[in-house]
Amino acid sequence: MSTIKELSGGLENVLVFKYAAFECGIRYPNRLDLSLIYSSEPCWAAGVFTTNKMCAAPVILCRERIQNPIHAILINATNANAATGKQGLENAKLLTKELGQLLSIEENSILMASTGIIGVQLPIDKMKNNLPVLVKNMSVEAGALLPRAIMTTDTFPKQYALSFKTSTGNYTIAGIAKGAGMIAPNMATLLCFVVTDFPVEQHVLQKLFYQSVNVSLNAITIDGDMSTNDTAIILSPSKPSVHTEDDIKIFNQALHLMMKKLAYLIVSDAEGATKCITIKVIRASNDGDAKKAGKSIAESLLVKTAMFGNDPNWGRIACAAGYSGAELQEEKLSIYFDEIPLFKDGSPVNYDKEKLMSILQKREYTITVDFGIGNSEFEYLTSDLSYDYVKINAEYST
Amino acid sequence: MSTIKELSGGLENVLVFKYAAFECGIRYPNRLDLSLIYSSEPCWAAGVFTTNKMCAAPVILCRERIQNPIHAILINATNANAATGKQGLENAKLLTKELGQLLSIEENSILMASTGIIGVQLPIDKMKNNLPVLVKNMSVEAGALLPRAIMTTDTFPKQYALSFKTSTGNYTIAGIAKGAGMIAPNMATLLCFVVTDFPVEQHVLQKLFYQSVNVSLNAITIDGDMSTNDTAIILSPSKPSVHTEDDIKIFNQALHLMMKKLAYLIVSDAEGATKCITIKVIRASNDGDAKKAGKSIAESLLVKTAMFGNDPNWGRIACAAGYSGAELQEEKLSIYFDEIPLFKDGSPVNYDKEKLMSILQKREYTITVDFGIGNSEFEYLTSDLSYDYVKINAEYST
Repeated sequence: MSTIKELSGGLENVLVFKYAAFECGIRYPNRLDLSLIYSSEPCWAAGVFTTNKMCAAPVILCRERIQNPIHAILINATNANAATGKQGLENAKLLTKELGQLLSIEENSILMASTGIIGVQLPIDKMKNNLPVLVKNMSVEAGALLPRAIMTTDTFPKQYALSFKTSTGNYTIAGIAKGAGMIAPNMATLLCFVVTDFPVEQHVLQKLFYQSVNVSLNAITIDGDMSTNDTAIILSPSKPSVHTEDDIKIFNQALHLMMKKLAYLIVSDAEGATKCITIKVIRASNDGDAKKAGKSIAESLLVKTAMFGNDPNWGRIACAAGYSGAELQEEKLSIYFDEIPLFKDGSPVNYDKEKLMSILQKREYTITVDFGIGNSEFEYLTSDLSYDYVKINAEYST
Repeated sequence: MSTIKELSGGLENVLVFKYAAFECGIRYPNRLDLSLIYSSEPCWAAGVFTTNKMCAAPVILCRERIQNPIHAILINATNANAATGKQGLENAKLLTKELGQLLSIEENSILMASTGIIGVQLPIDKMKNNLPVLVKNMSVEAGALLPRAIMTTDTFPKQYALSFKTSTGNYTIAGIAKGAGMIAPNMATLLCFVVTDFPVEQHVLQKLFYQSVNVSLNAITIDGDMSTNDTAIILSPSKPSVHTEDDIKIFNQALHLMMKKLAYLIVSDAEGATKCITIKVIRASNDGDAKKAGKSIAESLLVKTAMFGNDPNWGRIACAAGYSGAELQEEKLSIYFDEIPLFKDGSPVNYDKEKLMSILQKREYTITVDFGIGNSEFEYLTSDLSYDYVKINAEYST
């Protein structure tokens, strides 16, 4: 890992791409809402998308094109282009067609992602008319604008960049993301874009990206709702490469660090959240059970409200483990808050209340649930459930 | 249905049973917390219990005994006897043994149910010492005390009683229930006890009871958490009977009305809730899909906070339908608030905002989600998610 180094800033570290962000006025004035990632050379792309059957037009478009050589990703905020039917898909395609002409590239080499209000058609003319300005504005430096341009109710922009060294040279990887909380006034969305100058063939890239998303973006939960627009895409130059297996390993390590960090930033900024808590399931019967139990605990409203209230309510945790569907033997189950056991081999434990309170009052701690019956483990990141979550999600009127 | 009539009061209408409730001081003073349902003649019993793998001692006991001839149910509030291991099960058995001696009945003819704090052993001596008083206090009239004696943070007692007429005579059925919200400071529980003087053989009783629970207690959701103690039991005199098929139908109708009403009362009293909303899924592809979609919508935090905020956010409803796993064709999907369509055949509809607001501000309304692709339907009852839910569930410190 010593060859992997954190960089300041984000996308602007990866010099083989250009970026642009613009105030198009899609739904609100004076707000960066239209942005672009561009590579003059073709890229391999890999993506992970929402599995929601109500899926947005840009997700349909991406699924169709993700295996093509990719030159660009067009992104808009404030309108999800979801539940917009055929017209919505035509609009998305039209925009990529126009952009293709401006950039002199195939429209099929352009992906698109959207976030914002559901059930409203994109203001297509306004967006089309602004594409030339977007293209004109492209620069490496503008990468710094993109994390802000994709935000909805996120309270801070989310970006991360790393450099890493392999036997073939020095490389960079950078990524941006926006909040996972489903956000009023809109259906919100998890968007994540990662770029690297390290060439990785499509089928390897897809495998590695999927694996890293599985333990990062797919291992966080804020409200358990899955958006119509969730999109994570990675781009890598489609150049011949002579990487050794060790080189790929180093890239994979950097990719995992990248995705874990972006996932952490998203949970840190969950709607109304005051805490970022790791639910660590260990010694479960099998991998599926470890993940199921983690998800069940991480999504339990009772666990999340207890965390908000600094209540070490291990009963709620045991209960959520119990209904997760995972194999469980009560007399083998143990629960820890950081290193303090509250429930051990099926029995409550007397604990140092002061020491425990000092853990509960932290912004970040780990709840370990030891099933004691196998070798599988899985970690979820979750937020607490506060008054502000209800406030943010109740006070908007469509 | 004209032969079925609503009665005032609850259990005390079913004269073949006796009841008792007592302030035993299990966890708090001056609170009814120990109660009894008793029949001098043996009864057929049927039960539906939590499927949580962390299940409480009394649930284990009930599962062992439910097919026996049953004389009594012993119920305690304020202590769940869950996560209490072997000692917990021994305690439950000891109490039923003592009670059996006092009543001169087999201990195996006594069921038990508990609700309250998890992970704490029952104060077994105190409870044992108070059983004679409980038995001495038995009367038909004391049935009126039981709905209050099983409450935890419920804000009102829940009971319902009906009379019905069949070809063999006049009968009554009565039931009590307590809140389904998982309640601070305890793991709470759905408890429900129904008694009737209409004799129904065990295997028929079990089938009908299961069916009615499936569309009532199993079709409500408050926070999606499933307790360690959920218990619903029905008792019916085990006497030879000569019911016609029509007689059984009338009983079944009364049973359904009973269970639907108790389910309604539970949701009406959900923690912090301001609304009681019916989620009606129609024209789904199959029965499993109708239920899955209903559950997904009824449990969505975003849907529940939107209801609290009087926000007609059909996008969140469509989204929850989309990730439910149910088959869905976006261009066939429609969503109504009472009779007003907001989304029709995959497209948003312009609606009368004033008329819609008058629906949203009601305490009770129906959201119909029409999948337009089949013939299956299912109804869920759900509550909204308010600041008070978070408050109730966060402010307790163990």
